[in-house]
Amino acid sequence: MAEGDDDVPLILTWDETSSGLLEEDERAPDPRAQNSLRQSWEMNYQEAAIYLQEGENNDKFFTHPRNANALSAYLFAHNHLFYVMELLTAVLLMLLSLSEAPAVPFLRLDVYVHASLELLALAMVAFELCMKLRWLGFHTFIRHKRTMVKACVLFIQFIEAIVVLVRQTSHLRVTRALRPIFLVDCRYCGAVRRNLRQIFQSLPPFIDILLLLLFFMVIFAILGFCLFSANTADPYFSTLENSIVSLFVLLTTANFPDVMMPAYSKNRWSCIFFIVYLSIELYFIMNLLLAVVFDTFNGVEKMKFKSLLLHKRSAIEHAFQLLVTRQRPDGVCLKQFDGLMRFYRPRMTARDRFLTFKALNHSGATMLSLQDFYKFYEVIGLKWKARRIGEHWFDDLPRTAFLILKGINLLVKSKAFQYAMYLVVAINGIWILVETNMLNDGVSWTHVVPWSYIVFLTIYGVEVLLKITGLGPLTYFSSGWNLFDFSVTVFAFLGLIALAFDMEPFYFIVVLRPFQLLRLFKIKQRYRNVLDTMFELFPRMASLGLTLIIFYYSFAIVGMEFFADVVYPNCCNTSTVAESYRQINVTIGNQTVLKEGYYYLNNFNNILSSFVTLFELTVVNNWYITMEGVTSQTTHWSRLYFMTFYIVTMVVMTIIVAFILDAFVFRMNYSRKNREPLDDPEDEKGIVFETEVSQTEALQTLDMYKHTLGITNLSSLQDMCVALERSGHSSLVFLGRRSRTKSDLSMKMYEEEIQEWYEEYSRTNLQPDETFHRELDSPEASATNSIN
Amino acid sequence: MAEGDDDVPLILTWDETSSGLLEEDERAPDPRAQNSLRQSWEMNYQEAAIYLQEGENNDKFFTHPRNANALSAYLFAHNHLFYVMELLTAVLLMLLSLSEAPAVPFLRLDVYVHASLELLALAMVAFELCMKLRWLGFHTFIRHKRTMVKACVLFIQFIEAIVVLVRQTSHLRVTRALRPIFLVDCRYCGAVRRNLRQIFQSLPPFIDILLLLLFFMVIFAILGFCLFSANTADPYFSTLENSIVSLFVLLTTANFPDVMMPAYSKNRWSCIFFIVYLSIELYFIMNLLLAVVFDTFNGVEKMKFKSLLLHKRSAIEHAFQLLVTRQRPDGVCLKQFDGLMRFYRPRMTARDRFLTFKALNHSGATMLSLQDFYKFYEVIGLKWKARRIGEHWFDDLPRTAFLILKGINLLVKSKAFQYAMYLVVAINGIWILVETNMLNDGVSWTHVVPWSYIVFLTIYGVEVLLKITGLGPLTYFSSGWNLFDFSVTVFAFLGLIALAFDMEPFYFIVVLRPFQLLRLFKIKQRYRNVLDTMFELFPRMASLGLTLIIFYYSFAIVGMEFFADVVYPNCCNTSTVAESYRQINVTIGNQTVLKEGYYYLNNFNNILSSFVTLFELTVVNNWYITMEGVTSQTTHWSRLYFMTFYIVTMVVMTIIVAFILDAFVFRMNYSRKNREPLDDPEDEKGIVFETEVSQTEALQTLDMYKHTLGITNLSSLQDMCVALERSGHSSLVFLGRRSRTKSDLSMKMYEEEIQEWYEEYSRTNLQPDETFHRELDSPEASATNSIN
Repeated sequence: MAEGDDDVPLILTWDETSSGLLEEDERAPDPRAQNSLRQSWEMNYQEAAIYLQEGENNDKFFTHPRNANALSAYLFAHNHLFYVMELLTAVLLMLLSLSEAPAVPFLRLDVYVHASLELLALAMVAFELCMKLRWLGFHTFIRHKRTMVKACVLFIQFIEAIVVLVRQTSHLRVTRALRPIFLVDCRYCGAVRRNLRQIFQSLPPFIDILLLLLFFMVIFAILGFCLFSANTADPYFSTLENSIVSLFVLLTTANFPDVMMPAYSKNRWSCIFFIVYLSIELYFIMNLLLAVVFDTFNGVEKMKFKSLLLHKRSAIEHAFQLLVTRQRPDGVCLKQFDGLMRFYRPRMTARDRFLTFKALNHSGATMLSLQDFYKFYEVIGLKWKARRIGEHWFDDLPRTAFLILKGINLLVKSKAFQYAMYLVVAINGIWILVETNMLNDGVSWTHVVPWSYIVFLTIYGVEVLLKITGLGPLTYFSSGWNLFDFSVTVFAFLGLIALAFDMEPFYFIVVLRPFQLLRLFKIKQRYRNVLDTMFELFPRMASLGLTLIIFYYSFAIVGMEFFADVVYPNCCNTSTVAESYRQINVTIGNQTVLKEGYYYLNNFNNILSSFVTLFELTVVNNWYITMEGVTSQTTHWSRLYFMTFYIVTMVVMTIIVAFILDAFVFRMNYSRKNREPLDDPEDEKGIVFETEVSQTEALQTLDMYKHTLGITNLSSLQDMCVALERSGHSSLVFLGRRSRTKSDLSMKMYEEEIQEWYEEYSRTNLQPDETFHRELDSPEASATNSIN
Repeated sequence: MAEGDDDVPLILTWDETSSGLLEEDERAPDPRAQNSLRQSWEMNYQEAAIYLQEGENNDKFFTHPRNANALSAYLFAHNHLFYVMELLTAVLLMLLSLSEAPAVPFLRLDVYVHASLELLALAMVAFELCMKLRWLGFHTFIRHKRTMVKACVLFIQFIEAIVVLVRQTSHLRVTRALRPIFLVDCRYCGAVRRNLRQIFQSLPPFIDILLLLLFFMVIFAILGFCLFSANTADPYFSTLENSIVSLFVLLTTANFPDVMMPAYSKNRWSCIFFIVYLSIELYFIMNLLLAVVFDTFNGVEKMKFKSLLLHKRSAIEHAFQLLVTRQRPDGVCLKQFDGLMRFYRPRMTARDRFLTFKALNHSGATMLSLQDFYKFYEVIGLKWKARRIGEHWFDDLPRTAFLILKGINLLVKSKAFQYAMYLVVAINGIWILVETNMLNDGVSWTHVVPWSYIVFLTIYGVEVLLKITGLGPLTYFSSGWNLFDFSVTVFAFLGLIALAFDMEPFYFIVVLRPFQLLRLFKIKQRYRNVLDTMFELFPRMASLGLTLIIFYYSFAIVGMEFFADVVYPNCCNTSTVAESYRQINVTIGNQTVLKEGYYYLNNFNNILSSFVTLFELTVVNNWYITMEGVTSQTTHWSRLYFMTFYIVTMVVMTIIVAFILDAFVFRMNYSRKNREPLDDPEDEKGIVFETEVSQTEALQTLDMYKHTLGITNLSSLQDMCVALERSGHSSLVFLGRRSRTKSDLSMKMYEEEIQEWYEEYSRTNLQPDETFHRELDSPEASATNSIN
């Protein structure tokens, strides 16, 4: 059984010491050589694990560590501690703008404090960069564009931070807008990087159509100026500049009927100008923009999937080469696979490593062929669990309990119970509506708990308890909808306690009651689809949101540098939007009223206000009031800031729309193509792999792990053997599960194309040594191998 | 050659007199029988033509005329005169609302005048319905839903019109909103009917998502009411109703920062409520709505194409059965085809009928098989022209002229000339911009013609002349872009004359100058694609626009009946939007200013104002000002009108967006799939068929037409023979051209699927008599036939 120790790796890596080894006789029982051989295997496992990680993270192979020195730097820079440090540093740098002048009042820090913090954070970044330099080598480092940009930004920020510290006052620091670069470069922000890339890829066609849009705008601005500038009551077209700005704002519809009104009151036919303009610009070209972005997006998504897929394949091939032995260059046996997994997933138990190997091993032979190994990424995320032999969790309980629980189980699973609950929820909804409607003169927080609240909560509580007992906690909590029910009920209970004990801050929980009504949407297939897709999309949506926030951050910094404290109540009296900023007693006829114009609140006085202001600009309505207010207090060029922001958010928003469209249309196409509803219960569980383990196999494996590999932490394997014995069956089926990802759906959707891609790929990438191995391959060689 | 006269049709139709004929000996030389035979052939031609028309217009076959009586009614109701009458009646009925109270001031008519006009129009509609009843028969008439609805509406309108005439005053006539039904039912409004059908088909999924939207709205309304109603300065959430209305308006973003401001000024964190609400509702569910409609739309488009295609195929099969003879039931010869075409396209010349036959006749045999005949609709729209033998139009001119013209031709076609012209246009554009910018204090219409205008116009004029002479007028005007150039130049010239002769109403032409700049967009491929697609989409867009106008009309009538004259300057003082209606001197501090609130102009005082108001509501911005104004003058229930209108336009607009998206994505996919740019010159010419006609063939055909068919109007055929003789060649190639339609693109896109559909169709529809004919079919029978 120990003969595996003599296997010599096909390729030796990073390991100059044992390079002579291969010339020696392979069967030499020299213990020094044995040791050295073991070391070089360890090296190979590590490199293979690195290759597979690179494939998973879509890192290009030219950044692969070249030697032992680079390796140690690589390992230092590739662990979660380092990643977290990277992220925290970047977040700290970004958060600093909360405390730098103009600061959020309650977070203001002295200049020397925040400048020192900044220097500290920048030093951390510099350290990270040094590690990267060591790992990549100077040559690769220079070639890596993103890293170079980061280095430059770091340099500038460093100098600026020192200047601030020396002068003890902040100067105009627009470069702070570049800080998000550090965040984007973080390992954990890969999704944001991908989004940014996608945005930049969609830009060229977008810009083309944007030019068309702006062109029509200018033409209509000239026309409008010629037609309406004679009307002195019309401030919108008095000069060509005003005309262009008015039509730009009209493009966003933000000033719509108003911009038309002066002309319309003079001549009713002038509305034709505006109707034509809006029809062309808003209803045609803007939609065209969406169509073009959607189309590009579609194409880019597919290409991205393709390159990712091929990159992974290539990584798998690299790893495979490192794991095969000289004697049998066409297969990886469990020993090598286990070695790999110890580096690739250090936390994985021996049992799971073994089961993963079994899951990969489709052919049933003792070794993994390259074909088997190609499925590596599909099985790696599986969570393994022995298949429960009984149907219910209470099968082992005594007869009486079993019957009761079985009854509850049947009740809970029945349609009638479900619909009864829907009815209760619906009644609850109507109740809440009626109740709220009766409080028409404002909510007064009485501290008496309404009885309806207690009744409904009791029903929900009973339902939760019944379900948990009937289905078993594990089954119950494995469904997202049940989790939702449970948490809403728990929150409602907390709300009840809050009401009863008169705790003010918990009132908001009471207010969340209506969310219980969301359960009603389980009834209809389409809603389930929509909500499921929503949950599936959530990670991507979150990363798109983060991307948007990064843009917001940069614009907020620029806005704060230029427009901090320029608007205040009763400012902007020279502008056309003075009304919205006015806070004064106004006499209308004989009455005196306090008119409050709130728009001074939409300012750039600190980063939080800036974010809210930018969100308002994103929603677009009335954005010109903010623009004109700021413009009247500064210069005309301020408009450039607002218009640029509008165009940038338009790009991002169009991409978000295209993304949502694409995701939903993809899903609908998918379910149409596979003619299976997406909610069929088998499907809901995600991807499932089955593996059967016989008793003898389990014992053999345990034995091998103990004696050959010398691994001590084998409790998981021992548990498996015990379970096998106790069950009384000769074999046990293990189920590996993971939730389904977009990539799985894509795999199914593009099934045919994927085969073409693979063929094309293997045609262009077939390496000469690979063909050589194929010739070596013989059926006898693989037949004599056993699991050891 | 005359033996064709004895051919007996396989099927006899509508023709009870000659039904005994088939029992007689087929070769009987009885002249009475001959005559009767000819008559039954004519009947068959007519019915075949009707089948083909039904196939073209997508009329269901159950409305096919069943007997000779029905036929005459059918023929009466199916000609352009009748269609035009139908259309004019419907338009007249709709236009009446211009003159009915509340009327457009300068179009007001007395009650008895417009009521009489209405009665007249309704009588016309009744007459049309009677014709339809006669043609369809009572039984089919009752089954035809659209016609029944029309009859009911007609009945109600009739009674109402009489009541109006008797009382001499209009009562509340909301039923006028149903008038568009008469327009929708017109033959010429088929596209509108299709759009409406598509809208109704997209409704179920749309409504599902809409419910989700409204559900979240109500939940957030309850939340908002609980959170913000304590703030007395916040009018938006003071009651649950206000809360719901505010959030409905917020959904359209029309009140955005304002609705947040009172809460925001009290507590800065309240912005989270609004941000979350907008993110869920506006950025997620609204896009979901688009995704769902887009997806349904996509599917519906394909299904529509499929059913249309199969319907056409079935029509062709019906027609084919009517055209074949007993003797040769597997082919249609020229004589029958010509007979058909005389009914199907009465204006077509004999030459074109002959060429169409040749184009269909793919196999080269003398008869058209069913396979050939399937292509009927593809060749029917072709415009035939003999292929020009020379390359240029001036080939036949004397040598000197030829050389000069050849030089111009080369010059005009050169890249350098084109780019020089682009440069001129660009300079012109900058010139206009600079010039307009210099007039910053309003345009004063001096009557001096600026010299720059003359210079540029001269250049454009010279360009047009050069191009016309160089390319020949025919080639020049066959390009859309050239036509555009030409018309802009001509208009500019008219403008010059207007300026010089001081004619006020022509000033607008001067203003159109900037449109010359549109030519710049020829430079880039993408713009050409976009503009071409735009032109291709134009008919569909127009029909969608008309559909929208029909909705507008109905809403305008309802609006006029309920809200006419309710808003006026300084009305609505009790509402929150009183400002926008106020027209008064306001004292702010120490100043007195005239504040003009123009919103009273957005009213329902007559149908034109209503249309403008509804357009403003469609654009959505500030629509709540109109809504609140009207609501404050009427009841709370008025909001229902505005909200319903918003939802209806949202449906229509979403469909328009989906349509544009679909059309562009389709086109882009198409050009990607066929790997040919859509603008390659061959393609631009649309669909081209080639047919070669030899001299003997032409003479034979002429002979046959003259002697056998006894058709007298043969000038077109004779011209062809003369042209053949004069050219000195033994044969002449004719080119048939038509522009490409969406259906052609779809044919190419769905190539594979179409085959499947056909197979499926023939499996389910194979008629027993068809199989019978196949057995009769023998190679000898078809071989003995000749063109006669």
